[in-house]
Amino acid sequence: MESLARDTKLVIGMVGLPARGKTYISRKIARYLNWLGFKCGVFNIGEYRRMICGTKECTADFFDPKNDEAVKARNECANTALVDLIKFLKEGGDVAIYDGTNTSIERRKMVKQTLTEKIESHSLMWIESICNEEKIIETNIRMTKVSSPDYKDVDPDLATRDFRERIEQYRKKYEELSKEGDGENTAFIKLYDVGSQFIMNNITGYIESKVVSFLMNLHITPRPIYFTRHGESAFNIEDRVGGDPDLSERGYKYAERLSQFFRGELENGNIQKNTKILTSTLKRAVHTASMIEIGVKPVYLKSLDELNAGTCDGMTYEEIATRFPIEVKERKSDKLNYRYPRGESYLDVIQRIEPIIFEIERSKQPVIVVAHQAVIRCLYAYFSKHDIMEIPYISIPLHTVVKLIPGTYYAHETNYKIDVETGCVEEINVVKYSLIEDYRSVKA
Amino acid sequence: MESLARDTKLVIGMVGLPARGKTYISRKIARYLNWLGFKCGVFNIGEYRRMICGTKECTADFFDPKNDEAVKARNECANTALVDLIKFLKEGGDVAIYDGTNTSIERRKMVKQTLTEKIESHSLMWIESICNEEKIIETNIRMTKVSSPDYKDVDPDLATRDFRERIEQYRKKYEELSKEGDGENTAFIKLYDVGSQFIMNNITGYIESKVVSFLMNLHITPRPIYFTRHGESAFNIEDRVGGDPDLSERGYKYAERLSQFFRGELENGNIQKNTKILTSTLKRAVHTASMIEIGVKPVYLKSLDELNAGTCDGMTYEEIATRFPIEVKERKSDKLNYRYPRGESYLDVIQRIEPIIFEIERSKQPVIVVAHQAVIRCLYAYFSKHDIMEIPYISIPLHTVVKLIPGTYYAHETNYKIDVETGCVEEINVVKYSLIEDYRSVKA
Repeated sequence: MESLARDTKLVIGMVGLPARGKTYISRKIARYLNWLGFKCGVFNIGEYRRMICGTKECTADFFDPKNDEAVKARNECANTALVDLIKFLKEGGDVAIYDGTNTSIERRKMVKQTLTEKIESHSLMWIESICNEEKIIETNIRMTKVSSPDYKDVDPDLATRDFRERIEQYRKKYEELSKEGDGENTAFIKLYDVGSQFIMNNITGYIESKVVSFLMNLHITPRPIYFTRHGESAFNIEDRVGGDPDLSERGYKYAERLSQFFRGELENGNIQKNTKILTSTLKRAVHTASMIEIGVKPVYLKSLDELNAGTCDGMTYEEIATRFPIEVKERKSDKLNYRYPRGESYLDVIQRIEPIIFEIERSKQPVIVVAHQAVIRCLYAYFSKHDIMEIPYISIPLHTVVKLIPGTYYAHETNYKIDVETGCVEEINVVKYSLIEDYRSVKA
Repeated sequence: MESLARDTKLVIGMVGLPARGKTYISRKIARYLNWLGFKCGVFNIGEYRRMICGTKECTADFFDPKNDEAVKARNECANTALVDLIKFLKEGGDVAIYDGTNTSIERRKMVKQTLTEKIESHSLMWIESICNEEKIIETNIRMTKVSSPDYKDVDPDLATRDFRERIEQYRKKYEELSKEGDGENTAFIKLYDVGSQFIMNNITGYIESKVVSFLMNLHITPRPIYFTRHGESAFNIEDRVGGDPDLSERGYKYAERLSQFFRGELENGNIQKNTKILTSTLKRAVHTASMIEIGVKPVYLKSLDELNAGTCDGMTYEEIATRFPIEVKERKSDKLNYRYPRGESYLDVIQRIEPIIFEIERSKQPVIVVAHQAVIRCLYAYFSKHDIMEIPYISIPLHTVVKLIPGTYYAHETNYKIDVETGCVEEINVVKYSLIEDYRSVKA
């Protein structure tokens, strides 16, 4: 929504015991808001502690609220993180996430007061993650904590035991967010057991309500997401932009091969009959998607149509260069923001496909998206580790299926290059990457 | 999102003591979902009671849970409403709202069981409105209950007293929604004091999460909303569609007059310096909006751009008729769904401007929207009493300001016709209409 929300800075403060997914939630929100074009940074107090205090003393008693010296050291880390957070907002940041336990009312009041003193116009919202499902906590400890620098060279079982002691240390001083304790007007969201229940208090504001909707659609059930462009079209052959051409002969062959590919995925149990197929309203995509025979009908969405090239629609790149040399120059200098005359920019596409991101996030079933180069660049960037600035340059070749399986901590990606003549499927670019160690984390 | 959500039927059951705004919430949700293109009906148990039992016996003791005969009669009304609700969904309805008190667990379980038996694929979500602010309750009773057919020819003070007794009768058997009482998996939202606090349990599903976001943005603070088209453009003179022409000389004059008008509104205290001005990215709107001198800068939103006429963009209606006679015929037969080749339909515009509706609903400050004919038709229809089918035919003339003040129960509308030459402002179409007695209410 462009500049609708840019008047006030937003600080999101996380609250909760260790191993309640606070960092996961922080990174997800940051990724989402950055993708939307907001400048959002995460300030993780644990990272500051490791940077300032090192990791040697990080056994559970360092987290004992009665260990005065440790309390002092930990407060210093929290304060340093807060100073950096304020600096980030003053230097043009839109949203800053303060990722720590913040388990006492005293600490939260201190944060509130510091922000009030230091940032003129801002709002503060707390997000508390409460999780009592032992299985989720155990997985979280094993997957993220044991492998953390705090437990380098420590036996995993020993590390787990120590980490559980650390949790108990925090529990001693834990005061849940409440209207009574934190004040009637405090804006907060309490999430129970990864979104099965929510409590919200005094949530207003544009970004705030976007964040809530986003959180409501999150889940941690892994399922594959497939992206593919339509088969080759007449315009692809002529190197023309946009238009509504039909598939070429080769394009129709791809549609057949694609159907074969997904029938294979069905047989292998990678997808089920409840898979969702989403496609655009343009012929080349409609014809590609409607040939996928796995027992479900595609849903045709205008919001998946290709980036609108406005007055350049239907021209070849050569024609555009000859007729609009200035436009071509402008586009080169800022491809993300460049808007074709009477058409769209990449940022416009991001705004328009946001509901699709929600739909895919929300779905616990596999999702297949058959769309177009620019649209898939935007969708794929959200789910993978690409920065918003990279979006216009991401390679999404024709006749290739991108398969992503985002988990809680890691995403798996495989690309399948399909030879339309032979039907040969080549697996390329098989990678696994962390969704927790986010490059967008702001470090001092 | 077109057909993304059409697989399952949704039933929304209201819960709460009388005078807690259940009917207001029901009508708002119905209006919103209907506007989005879902077929949504409200089944108000009170209306069924008045229809079946009449209004003669409607003193407080009719609502005493110990009055066996009355309990039986009231159950019958509730059941009749439920039968109609099921019929509505079976005959093509998408969402049905069961608007009653539903204050006992027993009753809610009965509703759930009946729906499970009668409708194959559906989901059920409860919305409970809890209000303890005496002022809101008092206003609600005075504004809606005292004037209801139940209290025809009864002294208002007497009616208020009787209605308060009725509330006490319901309170005797009131069991709030809870995981413990209604079951762990029950989907519910609890709203406290008109949205200051929310509790949500197990909310999943596309429409459900839309409804939650919608409720989060509701408030009952009245403030004016202004809609106006840009000033006359070169294309308006030539009767051309779309394009990105600048304002004509008359158009610039309108922009000046419009600025005068809003400076007057500012002086009269009708708007304040925190007013929001939203406009599109097209020259004729940008130039009109940017001339409004009330101390705030407009926000330029691509989503407010005019309906995209695709390949017909820039043509006169005459040219379109000559070159695309079949298109013109199709458009005439279903103007709401008709999509220009490579362009948009009215329904497409509704999808794309939905965030604007949220933004306006959410705003407690006055909002000025400077946009285009089709876009304003869609926005205006949502806030006024127009049906979605009427949208393409609503008259939104040039050089006219539509001012709406939606309250909780009534909306006030005034249109101001501005003579660009003389600067004379004529008030036309001054109306007040109820937002509670909604034409969309489904009656047996």
